[in-house]
Amino acid sequence: MTSDAFLEKLSRARTAARELATATTAQKHAGLEAIAEAIEGGVDEVVVANALDLERGREQNIGDGLLDRLMLDEARLLGLAAAVRDVIRLPDPIGDVVRGSTLANGLQLTQVRVPFGVVGAIYEARPNVTVDIAALALKSGNGAVLRGGTAAENSNRVLVELIQGALHGVGLNGDAVQTIDEFGREGAGRLMRARGYVDVLIPRGSAGLISRVVQESTVPVIETGAGLVHVYVDASADRDKAINIVRNSKAHRPSVCNAAETLLVHQDAADRLLPGLIAALREEGVALSGDAGVTAVVPDIATADEDVWATEHLSLEMGIKLVESLDEAIEHIDRYSTRHTESIVTENYDNAQRFVSEVDSAVVMVNASTRFTDGGEFGFGAEVGISTQKLHARGPMGLQELTSTKWIVRGSGQIR
Amino acid sequence: MTSDAFLEKLSRARTAARELATATTAQKHAGLEAIAEAIEGGVDEVVVANALDLERGREQNIGDGLLDRLMLDEARLLGLAAAVRDVIRLPDPIGDVVRGSTLANGLQLTQVRVPFGVVGAIYEARPNVTVDIAALALKSGNGAVLRGGTAAENSNRVLVELIQGALHGVGLNGDAVQTIDEFGREGAGRLMRARGYVDVLIPRGSAGLISRVVQESTVPVIETGAGLVHVYVDASADRDKAINIVRNSKAHRPSVCNAAETLLVHQDAADRLLPGLIAALREEGVALSGDAGVTAVVPDIATADEDVWATEHLSLEMGIKLVESLDEAIEHIDRYSTRHTESIVTENYDNAQRFVSEVDSAVVMVNASTRFTDGGEFGFGAEVGISTQKLHARGPMGLQELTSTKWIVRGSGQIR
Repeated sequence: MTSDAFLEKLSRARTAARELATATTAQKHAGLEAIAEAIEGGVDEVVVANALDLERGREQNIGDGLLDRLMLDEARLLGLAAAVRDVIRLPDPIGDVVRGSTLANGLQLTQVRVPFGVVGAIYEARPNVTVDIAALALKSGNGAVLRGGTAAENSNRVLVELIQGALHGVGLNGDAVQTIDEFGREGAGRLMRARGYVDVLIPRGSAGLISRVVQESTVPVIETGAGLVHVYVDASADRDKAINIVRNSKAHRPSVCNAAETLLVHQDAADRLLPGLIAALREEGVALSGDAGVTAVVPDIATADEDVWATEHLSLEMGIKLVESLDEAIEHIDRYSTRHTESIVTENYDNAQRFVSEVDSAVVMVNASTRFTDGGEFGFGAEVGISTQKLHARGPMGLQELTSTKWIVRGSGQIR
Repeated sequence: MTSDAFLEKLSRARTAARELATATTAQKHAGLEAIAEAIEGGVDEVVVANALDLERGREQNIGDGLLDRLMLDEARLLGLAAAVRDVIRLPDPIGDVVRGSTLANGLQLTQVRVPFGVVGAIYEARPNVTVDIAALALKSGNGAVLRGGTAAENSNRVLVELIQGALHGVGLNGDAVQTIDEFGREGAGRLMRARGYVDVLIPRGSAGLISRVVQESTVPVIETGAGLVHVYVDASADRDKAINIVRNSKAHRPSVCNAAETLLVHQDAADRLLPGLIAALREEGVALSGDAGVTAVVPDIATADEDVWATEHLSLEMGIKLVESLDEAIEHIDRYSTRHTESIVTENYDNAQRFVSEVDSAVVMVNASTRFTDGGEFGFGAEVGISTQKLHARGPMGLQELTSTKWIVRGSGQIR
């Protein structure tokens, strides 16, 4: 179709994806098992390639956090192989019948789940995502075109070679998984405009990355990620539940998207609950700031500036605000939330009902830690990411969210 | 939030949509009935406004086809009011439970259908779409921001005023439906970039319009429409079914997206079927062209150039091509189809199974006219359009396709 090396790769992924779409579950499972074995057998090879990426990362002073994400050792690679085998245990969504009916004229309609075709993914310096997405794409019958970032180029190249070899070894078309890291930033841009080659594009990573993809992409995008998550402690909240849920939501793993960033407390509960909440958070090392209502009750707390309500810290920082009513809490959430997850702590039935009905987020909770917004916790097995948009998928995305549907109409000569 | 008149309208739609999201079905039905009555009572007012649009259209020589689409008379307006009442009879998708489970830790998960929020629509010179989309948006609890085109500006303004007044009259927030025609082409561009105000954008109209929206929009888009539809007559096809289905698919209403554009015929059926197919199509006034295989069998037919396979005629023109095999038919479809609808005419079970499995279109049919790809025919009642993309909705879109979902997690203090 073209002599362009970039489009050549995408064309090959598309051809392979067409074959995968009609592969049986057993064939796909053989491919997944072969990938797990190839990673186990390729540990040394991957670690050598990964060392090159780590060396360049250190030269470029990318920081300890990024270096840690970039690093693959034997333990992590064996963990990745185990995760691939976990995907084998999940149900295969392809071919599921979603709806169906027989029309008055005898036409038989069936809406069935089919693969998207080719799934594109753009992420940053996390070579483990290369394996995760390849495995999920394979299980759901999709090809995958991966842009994992120049920082992990060597690791991703070796991982994709292992995956391609594994697929080929069991009679599947290895072209189904492609990396385009060698085309650099321009390759990422071309992927975003590869209509006809790529059916859906999933950006995973920083707000900046996701924003660039949304702005530039002409391929349909599923946005993932940003989590400016709120916990609202209602006037009627139980003290122990409130302290446990706020502490767990904020401090259990503060660097991830489902960690809480802002605590809203009803003013009628301030005297009763605020000192205990603040003590528990400080015990976890959380740096707190509060609005005027909060500092009036607990004087030794920093004064919050307006920015704090709009910031996804992803660290042990938290803003606390007193609200006069459930309405004020819902309005604050509507203004600042990224619509990922919000939780109310309450013993009041009507307030619980109003909160889940009126808060417009992917996941709304009553008396539960926001840390539960996660594909694994929801029972999806593997997770592609957490969608914060409303189109196609909302909340944790599992295998089913990597599928589209197709209508099949079986007739016997019907015309209009 | 802003003194900008454009964003002011969008903000008001968003506020009203939040109210609509929790309206009961009975309240929404009262709104729909009031809209139907307002249109019936406003016939004269609309016809006067429509006359201004028609006059400008004639001055600008927009053509008879567009003038006919633009025209509203009493009969058409009463038909629109009746269509609004039809929407009352459809089931309300909001609040439907899609999935649910109780986790090992006791958390109760429920995925429920919720409105998108604000639906944006961009269409051209068809004021009836203003009423259709407003009614569907209302029933599904969404606000609607409508860009119906400068050519229909006066008609749309009066229709939206009638709708707003009707909603207000039954205690609903009339701001839920807004027109932005007065902001012209720039307004359409701003709507495409109105992230945070509009949750999904649906372009309806020409390929050029849809392409512009896909290129420019940062709001998630559902593409509708283009239909380069194929009928494949297999070697084993029944003669009567083939002739009826090809004739109906092409000639029943050639100007719409589910009308067939290309006929593929297996070479082994050429002598048996081609003369009858061609005679039937000529009887309907279809202008035919064929490839070399076709002209060898039926000499008095124009020779097709390559362009014909890639053209959505939307008129009484059709290209006919002989293929050597089912594989060649599927490859031709894969190359040229817009992935709307394809139909196989066959008596062979395996070929039917392979066609529905391997053809990657929104709707794939066996022994049925392509004209059945339609929300009304599928039993959806009203239709928003026909999605030719794979994200969120594929094929005819009814009320359910105007919804998103939300996860509700009910706990009793669970933490991780």
